Amino acid sequence: MFSEAMCKAGVTYPQGFKAAGVKAGVKKSGNLDVAVIYTEKEASVAGVFTQNAVAAAPVFASKKVVATGKAHAITANAGCANACTGEQGTKDAAAMQSITAEVLGCEPLDVVVASTGIIGVNLPMEKMEAGIKQAVSELSEHGSETAGKAIITTDTYSKSCAAEIELGGKKVRFGAIAKGSGMIQPNMATMLCFITTDAAIDSKLLQKALSEITEVSFNMISIDGDMSTNDMVIVLANGEAGNEEIKVEGADYEKFKATLQELCQGLAQRIAADGEGATKFLTVHVSGVKNFADGKTIAMSVAKSPLVKTAFFGEDPNWGRVICAVGYAGVEMVPEKTVVKFGGIPVYAYGVGAEHDEEALKQVMSQKDIVIDIDMGLGEAEATVWTCDFSYEYVKINGEYHT
Amino acid sequence: MFSEAMCKAGVTYPQGFKAAGVKAGVKKSGNLDVAVIYTEKEASVAGVFTQNAVAAAPVFASKKVVATGKAHAITANAGCANACTGEQGTKDAAAMQSITAEVLGCEPLDVVVASTGIIGVNLPMEKMEAGIKQAVSELSEHGSETAGKAIITTDTYSKSCAAEIELGGKKVRFGAIAKGSGMIQPNMATMLCFITTDAAIDSKLLQKALSEITEVSFNMISIDGDMSTNDMVIVLANGEAGNEEIKVEGADYEKFKATLQELCQGLAQRIAADGEGATKFLTVHVSGVKNFADGKTIAMSVAKSPLVKTAFFGEDPNWGRVICAVGYAGVEMVPEKTVVKFGGIPVYAYGVGAEHDEEALKQVMSQKDIVIDIDMGLGEAEATVWTCDFSYEYVKINGEYHT
Repeated sequence: MFSEAMCKAGVTYPQGFKAAGVKAGVKKSGNLDVAVIYTEKEASVAGVFTQNAVAAAPVFASKKVVATGKAHAITANAGCANACTGEQGTKDAAAMQSITAEVLGCEPLDVVVASTGIIGVNLPMEKMEAGIKQAVSELSEHGSETAGKAIITTDTYSKSCAAEIELGGKKVRFGAIAKGSGMIQPNMATMLCFITTDAAIDSKLLQKALSEITEVSFNMISIDGDMSTNDMVIVLANGEAGNEEIKVEGADYEKFKATLQELCQGLAQRIAADGEGATKFLTVHVSGVKNFADGKTIAMSVAKSPLVKTAFFGEDPNWGRVICAVGYAGVEMVPEKTVVKFGGIPVYAYGVGAEHDEEALKQVMSQKDIVIDIDMGLGEAEATVWTCDFSYEYVKINGEYHT
Repeated sequence: MFSEAMCKAGVTYPQGFKAAGVKAGVKKSGNLDVAVIYTEKEASVAGVFTQNAVAAAPVFASKKVVATGKAHAITANAGCANACTGEQGTKDAAAMQSITAEVLGCEPLDVVVASTGIIGVNLPMEKMEAGIKQAVSELSEHGSETAGKAIITTDTYSKSCAAEIELGGKKVRFGAIAKGSGMIQPNMATMLCFITTDAAIDSKLLQKALSEITEVSFNMISIDGDMSTNDMVIVLANGEAGNEEIKVEGADYEKFKATLQELCQGLAQRIAADGEGATKFLTVHVSGVKNFADGKTIAMSVAKSPLVKTAFFGEDPNWGRVICAVGYAGVEMVPEKTVVKFGGIPVYAYGVGAEHDEEALKQVMSQKDIVIDIDMGLGEAEATVWTCDFSYEYVKINGEYHT
């Protein structure tokens, strides 16, 4: 379903979308830092936002756009989060909307805005204005790559993805760009994700699908337990595919939602794998629980434990730390019913360490991609969380990222 | 109240207590690893224990001792946690009690037992038996120092402390040894603390005092958010001071409790300051909250944030990360009412960054001991949490501590 060429096309893979990323001088590094994504045909819009009480100005501005159900564009920048910036921040977010609207010929309320970067610093609005205008002038059907690079911060690469399905005989396309890295979890911290599709779908159904999908994708990743002030996931659906508009929860809706979910889970996994300083991608799969919430609580407890994360960095099969994190998760646990496996190899079973092949386990621990299975033996539900290990590099990146 | 000589005397500072630490060969390093503390005169005993569902065998054994209200001895080892060891672990903890009781001439149920170290490995009981017997043979009024060293793991030093007050004209003494380091928080994770006093006090009142004090001392420290399987704090009160036994909550009880609290808070702070790889001691003081629980939640959110902890390691006054952690704590927060200070210097006030003297702030950040004040402006209550920064050394210690 996802080819490399499609993924590279990203947000411009669906029909009717253009994008561009430019160097406006917001990032100190001089790298790409302002992105615009545009659809001439009005799109249904849906969004999910940070739950941090200190939400940034662009979050408030974009929530109002999503409330209208319709949008034409997304304007985003990296290098400055426009968070904790008071009234000036509110004005600057509004200016990002009005500058974009003016050059595109739409209304300010048609423009979603997003920022990521340092907190507590005002946006350099002259640079932003010039950058937005330049980005609009460079909008193209091949602009997803530069747009994707313009929204990253400490990510090692820009995440992009695409998909294609058939709905009622029409080809329907999806594309996305995302940034992640530090501060991921809970609830999609310091991440921006912009998804485009040429499907025709009612904005309320689009919102319902996105909200439900977020619970099993972006809200199931953890880098370090911090949640940012600026996170958002936005979907624009412009209807260019010509499918009959999805207005009810029938087969078309289910197919649409399944594809969007696959896209979001794939991006979530890649964001976790590219956590700051990560050397390992860890999948924590909890089964045998009474409900999803219990499973998520246990999986997050393990995924967030610095002791577990440093053990995997050191390639040490220290199951004691895993079982310890399960034990303090605050959810019912019966050691005599619990089984833990690393890469399919049982390491803890029913209250004690499990006998295992040391060499095979060593082999598992040396992999870049490791699955931790935890069967609680108490029910039929399950949950999966994706995370990464904790390395020297994480400390270096975050200790040396000076304000 | 606390002199260096008194502190060194530790658990043997109160009258009637003897202690010893020996090398039994449980630690791979060959360092001191088995400790015994003894009072010939029967003592009132109180204890608080880990809340981890995967509690170790010695935790279950010691809870039964505490339930009787009386004890004569504490036997502890480092190097092996006797956790996740099933039936054999239960037998080994019981054997630690019976071996100690036999050589001391008391009952197994008079002996508190504690273990710390690697999870999932059985205790080497031949070595333990020889070690316990040797420790008992070496019991002395100068044995606190070796006992303290025998219970540490990755601590850089053994914590000991003492105090003295007058109760009804009698001199009453307190002494303590403690180990901490990694996995501290919540609820006194991977810590052992043994406190002795020659006060005469009813065991139920002693338990009440200890439980309440734990909430504002050992439960207010965080190293990395992990909670161990083996934590315990034990108090033995043998009555040798000859004070009239404290049986009600009068002035004597309050004085006793205040001293015990000061002792526990001092130890808690030193445990936090000696967190694995720590280079900074951070005090997170939250005021202006509606109640203690809100304050603790906010302070813990800040103290646990790897982004905050790495920023302080890097001496970067990144208040954005602090306010971000306040914002996602899940407690009511009004940015426009919140003020944050580092070392008394306002860095964030009422929704935006506060103007400040850069040089003075740089000076604060270079200190080893830094206070973060967060005034929420919403009430009269407050809470203080102690923690440390996150360094390369933390990753090294925990990535390379192989099982």
